[in-house]
Amino acid sequence: MWGGRFAEGPSAIMREINASIPFDKALWREDIRASKAHVAMLGAQGIVSEQDAAAIADGLDTIAAEYERDGVPEDWDLEDIHMTVEARLTELIGPVAGRLHTARSRNDQVATDFRLWVRAANRRAIAAIAALREALLDRADEHAGTIMPGFTHLQTAQPVTLGHHLLAYYEMLSRDAARFAAADERLDECPLGSAALAGTGFPIDRDATARALGFACPTRNSLDAVSDRDFALDYCMAASQCAIHLSRLAEELILWASQPFGFASLPDQLSTGSSIMPQKRNPDAAELVRGHAGRIIGAGTALMVTMKGLPLAYSKDMQDDKPPVFEAANLLDLSLAAMTGMIAETEFHEEAMRAAAEAGYATATDLADWLVREADVPFREAHHITGEAVALADRKGCALDQLPLDELQAIDPRVDERVFAALSVEHSVASRSSYGGTAPDQVRLRVAEAREALPASHAQEEPR
Amino acid sequence: MWGGRFAEGPSAIMREINASIPFDKALWREDIRASKAHVAMLGAQGIVSEQDAAAIADGLDTIAAEYERDGVPEDWDLEDIHMTVEARLTELIGPVAGRLHTARSRNDQVATDFRLWVRAANRRAIAAIAALREALLDRADEHAGTIMPGFTHLQTAQPVTLGHHLLAYYEMLSRDAARFAAADERLDECPLGSAALAGTGFPIDRDATARALGFACPTRNSLDAVSDRDFALDYCMAASQCAIHLSRLAEELILWASQPFGFASLPDQLSTGSSIMPQKRNPDAAELVRGHAGRIIGAGTALMVTMKGLPLAYSKDMQDDKPPVFEAANLLDLSLAAMTGMIAETEFHEEAMRAAAEAGYATATDLADWLVREADVPFREAHHITGEAVALADRKGCALDQLPLDELQAIDPRVDERVFAALSVEHSVASRSSYGGTAPDQVRLRVAEAREALPASHAQEEPR
Amino acid sequence: MWGGRFAEGPSAIMREINASIPFDKALWREDIRASKAHVAMLGAQGIVSEQDAAAIADGLDTIAAEYERDGVPEDWDLEDIHMTVEARLTELIGPVAGRLHTARSRNDQVATDFRLWVRAANRRAIAAIAALREALLDRADEHAGTIMPGFTHLQTAQPVTLGHHLLAYYEMLSRDAARFAAADERLDECPLGSAALAGTGFPIDRDATARALGFACPTRNSLDAVSDRDFALDYCMAASQCAIHLSRLAEELILWASQPFGFASLPDQLSTGSSIMPQKRNPDAAELVRGHAGRIIGAGTALMVTMKGLPLAYSKDMQDDKPPVFEAANLLDLSLAAMTGMIAETEFHEEAMRAAAEAGYATATDLADWLVREADVPFREAHHITGEAVALADRKGCALDQLPLDELQAIDPRVDERVFAALSVEHSVASRSSYGGTAPDQVRLRVAEAREALPASHAQEEPR
Amino acid sequence: MWGGRFAEGPSAIMREINASIPFDKALWREDIRASKAHVAMLGAQGIVSEQDAAAIADGLDTIAAEYERDGVPEDWDLEDIHMTVEARLTELIGPVAGRLHTARSRNDQVATDFRLWVRAANRRAIAAIAALREALLDRADEHAGTIMPGFTHLQTAQPVTLGHHLLAYYEMLSRDAARFAAADERLDECPLGSAALAGTGFPIDRDATARALGFACPTRNSLDAVSDRDFALDYCMAASQCAIHLSRLAEELILWASQPFGFASLPDQLSTGSSIMPQKRNPDAAELVRGHAGRIIGAGTALMVTMKGLPLAYSKDMQDDKPPVFEAANLLDLSLAAMTGMIAETEFHEEAMRAAAEAGYATATDLADWLVREADVPFREAHHITGEAVALADRKGCALDQLPLDELQAIDPRVDERVFAALSVEHSVASRSSYGGTAPDQVRLRVAEAREALPASHAQEEPR
Repeated sequence: MWGGRFAEGPSAIMREINASIPFDKALWREDIRASKAHVAMLGAQGIVSEQDAAAIADGLDTIAAEYERDGVPEDWDLEDIHMTVEARLTELIGPVAGRLHTARSRNDQVATDFRLWVRAANRRAIAAIAALREALLDRADEHAGTIMPGFTHLQTAQPVTLGHHLLAYYEMLSRDAARFAAADERLDECPLGSAALAGTGFPIDRDATARALGFACPTRNSLDAVSDRDFALDYCMAASQCAIHLSRLAEELILWASQPFGFASLPDQLSTGSSIMPQKRNPDAAELVRGHAGRIIGAGTALMVTMKGLPLAYSKDMQDDKPPVFEAANLLDLSLAAMTGMIAETEFHEEAMRAAAEAGYATATDLADWLVREADVPFREAHHITGEAVALADRKGCALDQLPLDELQAIDPRVDERVFAALSVEHSVASRSSYGGTAPDQVRLRVAEAREALPASHAQEEPR
Repeated sequence: MWGGRFAEGPSAIMREINASIPFDKALWREDIRASKAHVAMLGAQGIVSEQDAAAIADGLDTIAAEYERDGVPEDWDLEDIHMTVEARLTELIGPVAGRLHTARSRNDQVATDFRLWVRAANRRAIAAIAALREALLDRADEHAGTIMPGFTHLQTAQPVTLGHHLLAYYEMLSRDAARFAAADERLDECPLGSAALAGTGFPIDRDATARALGFACPTRNSLDAVSDRDFALDYCMAASQCAIHLSRLAEELILWASQPFGFASLPDQLSTGSSIMPQKRNPDAAELVRGHAGRIIGAGTALMVTMKGLPLAYSKDMQDDKPPVFEAANLLDLSLAAMTGMIAETEFHEEAMRAAAEAGYATATDLADWLVREADVPFREAHHITGEAVALADRKGCALDQLPLDELQAIDPRVDERVFAALSVEHSVASRSSYGGTAPDQVRLRVAEAREALPASHAQEEPR
Repeated sequence: MWGGRFAEGPSAIMREINASIPFDKALWREDIRASKAHVAMLGAQGIVSEQDAAAIADGLDTIAAEYERDGVPEDWDLEDIHMTVEARLTELIGPVAGRLHTARSRNDQVATDFRLWVRAANRRAIAAIAALREALLDRADEHAGTIMPGFTHLQTAQPVTLGHHLLAYYEMLSRDAARFAAADERLDECPLGSAALAGTGFPIDRDATARALGFACPTRNSLDAVSDRDFALDYCMAASQCAIHLSRLAEELILWASQPFGFASLPDQLSTGSSIMPQKRNPDAAELVRGHAGRIIGAGTALMVTMKGLPLAYSKDMQDDKPPVFEAANLLDLSLAAMTGMIAETEFHEEAMRAAAEAGYATATDLADWLVREADVPFREAHHITGEAVALADRKGCALDQLPLDELQAIDPRVDERVFAALSVEHSVASRSSYGGTAPDQVRLRVAEAREALPASHAQEEPR
Repeated sequence: MWGGRFAEGPSAIMREINASIPFDKALWREDIRASKAHVAMLGAQGIVSEQDAAAIADGLDTIAAEYERDGVPEDWDLEDIHMTVEARLTELIGPVAGRLHTARSRNDQVATDFRLWVRAANRRAIAAIAALREALLDRADEHAGTIMPGFTHLQTAQPVTLGHHLLAYYEMLSRDAARFAAADERLDECPLGSAALAGTGFPIDRDATARALGFACPTRNSLDAVSDRDFALDYCMAASQCAIHLSRLAEELILWASQPFGFASLPDQLSTGSSIMPQKRNPDAAELVRGHAGRIIGAGTALMVTMKGLPLAYSKDMQDDKPPVFEAANLLDLSLAAMTGMIAETEFHEEAMRAAAEAGYATATDLADWLVREADVPFREAHHITGEAVALADRKGCALDQLPLDELQAIDPRVDERVFAALSVEHSVASRSSYGGTAPDQVRLRVAEAREALPASHAQEEPR
């Protein structure tokens, strides 16, 4: 009757589907920390006696030491981390343990615990992003003058510098850091004291618990406080965008390390071999970073779908908030760390990059620009003339700057010998010195600027 | 340099990001089963000696017994379940273990293992769905004549029978079963022997291994076979649609169990209490089923995003295929079992349902239909006349069939006293006897029909 | 050969798949505005003559007037809005039009246009959210003392005030506004002058164009600037979370307007009737708001999947950025406006709400709290005693405060007659005066606080 | 008060948010077809007179002719295509038009119309897939012996044949066709006659309307029939998986057409140039196909989220079913057609492919296999020996088959001169003749087999 594995009837199913302890035990530090803040406040306000408050706090310390040493016991009948801690507290100190739950509910308790956890994840992400940004700055500085082909549509477009290319990711990651910081700021309110949904009649001091837990202030509406998972969604959304950036960088590293490109060798420590092909050196870490973007996006989707259309206040559906966030955070932490290693240790093959930049008529735009600048040709016309020059070079199988001057002049008489200087890849990149452009000087300037700004953006990682 | 927790440098990161053993150990039975089929074929074809084949098979049996007893060891350095098994085999039987990997690769090995796992999940779903369909038939039969309000837009629309309502879910679940069955059929090809990507030069017999593992035939293209995860996506898509159906039923049970509706009491064993409100009896299991739909949909999204745009053949991104599928399958199994329990055990409050059906002018359509049928009024005009009758009843605060005949005739003289018979909820549901309609007789007919058909659709669950 | 509808061969397919003009014509204002800023700068820097610059600017004004009057022509051969405008400019002023494209590319042009569009959408959202927040404050103030049942798990939990309930949405929408504002701030950099990907050798003044278009500064890396769609994703993510909040409010309005709840009547103007059931009054607008959450989430998913794994710089995949964002913005604008109307005009049925609050033992927690406060019983024990009282009331079919004192004292002798005062719904809500709690005074305080803060958060909507 | 653009108050918002005519006018053919089937049945059953039925049918024909000629008028006050048609019918034939809506509702009407539309989309997809499969077979046959590098992890792995590589996509598309066919089969039931939700009391003949509209049978439960959108989700899921396959092929074409690979030139007609770089030839069509996968996946997500948690029967949220499906179908149709053109017309550069296959030690596995086969070395040991040979060749900068025999024998004395024959790419591909392997003979066999099977899978496209 119960389908496959549940011969035992509804209660066995219920124990399994209902128990969140297998995953919410990850919140044990936050749960104990929040309970300690709560009971200290209850004591200070005279809602429980100072003596009872002290007994509860001691008991909680004992439990923390036990969990640190032995892990958290996983008893499905105790459902979740909150009941698991409270049950142990009762064993340790007797019925007085029952006073801990005065003026709170599991609804505000879990909202508080989970916020604390997500706050740490936000700050961990900011710190890990800072490490990756630093690695990018170091390599960008080193390769400020290294020439490679810039691609659009994966077709050779114009020569760029490798330093400039790496700095593009620096910018993306700066936005990611800003996103986590904004999420952290929106999260910075403490739900504790909202009780089940309506607040409480006990004379609690919510400012005190908020302060004790490092929040800027208490939340402003108790119904919202227990029903809200925006802070978790904010984390998922920031993680998704960051993962997309990392997936783009991973895609490029995979391309660059392929034999046809040959632009880079990834570090041995972040590659693997094959069980069947002895010559292989696979960019596994980069591929996993790219793949993880899918799972991180999926985690955000899961949480959005779960929250959609839920009436106030707390519904049990919201217990499904934690597994996606825990997974996304684990995958993002790993992805950022692995990418930092790859950026720091990848060996770039400058000759291969330069050779590729010189193929593919990458300086055709420079010819067009020269015509505009030196011969006052409207850009559209210059673009057309250059197209003919490219077609000619293609027929002759030579580079643009190897075309004879007279053949160029046959296409358009305004061309003169000064043009050849404009067609080298060095000249091309050096000339693109508009703000944010690829010129080596621009790259060095930007690195210097960024190095100055970066320390300020370092967030302190939450101590655990 | 490495960001937060990875003080140890790239190789420590690599061990963690690369290791799939924490999750792919779930495939140990499938891995050993596939290896046994492979080595038996190698022996039969003379690719390895019969003696070596026997030694390997014995070693694999030993390992299976060990894992059954002690679980699978989780050594990150061995990366995955395949290397974990092979390493243990080498300890047990020495270098001859190295012959097992002849003419195969981890790429076709994992594709085979995972297909076997997903095949079992498909069949488990079909069986669990059949149990739920049976429960629905039982309750539909019991309540073939129980009258409740049918809603559209969550507004009382027309009276329906509870049996008919439950049968709507029977239909949805029948389609779900068909979807898993179609997925199972598309999956029914064995990738083993595709080797890394190109096939092999050894004289293997792929029909033999396919047969031994219960597949209809071998896959037809080795590049596709190692790059394909359609079978996993098929599972996720079928699971997502099934989860959506269950979320709709869960939503209804939650509504029906609310105090304002009061249509049903969910079984005690599938409800929980509150840590703060002593009177609560919460429909947790239903809420979790509804919430799980989010995570199951998220799992499918994750896998789709991961697969999008991957070039052939195997890329490491594809290692991210298993966690979403494992999660979706676990959540779906639980959801189906919990819902089966809820359907079987929910107590329906017939009086409350009937009272609600009698409120809200649910038989207004019957009045309109009577005018069409008995007085040959075009439907649009009848609809308009009925609207006036409803407005009148609303002003008078009475039911439609409590309106005085003369006042009805003042609205339209074609109304006569026979109309009142048409306005009872019993008459209303009994009259809707079109095929698939809500009339009790239609419900009983459909239950009988379905009971005949259901056993045929029962799939045998994969033995493990 | 070409499949179904494409008898004409690849070029016909290409015209259709490649043309973005059917949707990017929505950017015509932004495109002309950005071109005018660009050409003014080219003139000021002497890159084109002042005379040519003036001719181009005049031509662009003419085109703007034409489009305002006649709409944008949709010629697939001109591919996109940029070429459509430039082609018309050439018709109007001849080859000098070709000078407009000096020192820019379609890649930075579209990035600029689209940012301008998304910036306006951000600001439109902030303004629409402010209108909805104001409507919520008005109704919360009006109903600061209206008592309704608060639900958790959709079970009656504790009495709350309707004002407090509405303020929960005020808080959600405040976070939404903050999210759009943060997105707006991150977006506030101008990509113009990044050219195709590498910057340009022309002596452009990027600060000038940034300023002219109202941006804080130019973007800092040209490769990033043309490859980045974070600003569009930021919009989609903020819109998704806002839509989820609206879907929750919509769900509640639908529940409240159902016959079993009967808590509210939605405004006639935001309801519809039925083509077949004359009595129906359907909450269509609320249902559409709830449904739109799905499409808005889907739009964000689409954009994330499209961006994942794209190498630098611009890839044509990124042309798929606009339809999802346009759709999400249209649906969000409509949803916010419809919800503002619903909040402003919904009629709340206070008696029905209050009657529901008095049923369901909603003040059981108050009994437990009384025991803790007045008789110093540990909360867990008080919870247990109250459970027995609820069970007794349930057996007797009466409310908690209708239980005879002696029967209560039989359960626990510490109960005395003062308890009855604690069990009324008025006392219950009045007592929950902790910060953020449901007490009428807290609600009025919060409304006053919010009214003071709200005007400051009003963003100026972008003039168009 | 109404936020931004809705100065006019709720009724203006309502008109806009409620009107589905802007998109559901795409259903006009289906709507008229279904109405004609319905009225013919009403006439045959005597529910309306034959004369009225004929007048209605004639009126509908007139409307069809009008719409074919002039398009569908878009009057928001008429809400949807159903009311638009009926209003026009009333203008044409007077009040008798009101008899058309007897025994049906918009709920079953739209379910029927939309099923008809999706059925055609399924069949169009199957036909377009068949065209692409044929193109793949043609090119696979042509290139059965063309040697290219097979990649795993985008690293050169083993030589494969281009024909074999193309056939991998043939297999994926075969599964896609099977998926659409299964969806088509599950869809094959007619909802007409389910009325609003409960069926009808009129003596309708649902078999007759089902037959007239080409369905296998009527749906079996009226509540399910009006609440079900599985058929639309089935389409989206099949489209998503197909789009993922196309995105993978697109990714490969983009890679192959890049300068570093140089394996292919895409057809001119499916490429575009650059507005700034005259030399560019961009693979736009391939990029758009890859990008469209994101939007198609997003469409499926949208529909799933919208449907999740909806109670029975029809809710207005379900009006959000059509835009995602229409978009997905349009993008899939275009993607399939464009990809068919690309496969048919791409020029493959055989020398570049072969040169790449000869680099990168692609035949290292062949050396390992030779050791197993000829010298009876366990595979793991052979893998190790080969690893040393690759390292040696890498140090010497030569290919494996250029290593001196004595140096190979210094690594392992069991190597002899026969080994060199095994190390050519021709030998390598020819040797992999296991079923489904890359050997030219296997490719030709598979092409022949597939050509025989393909015509049978061609579905007839729905006539419109």
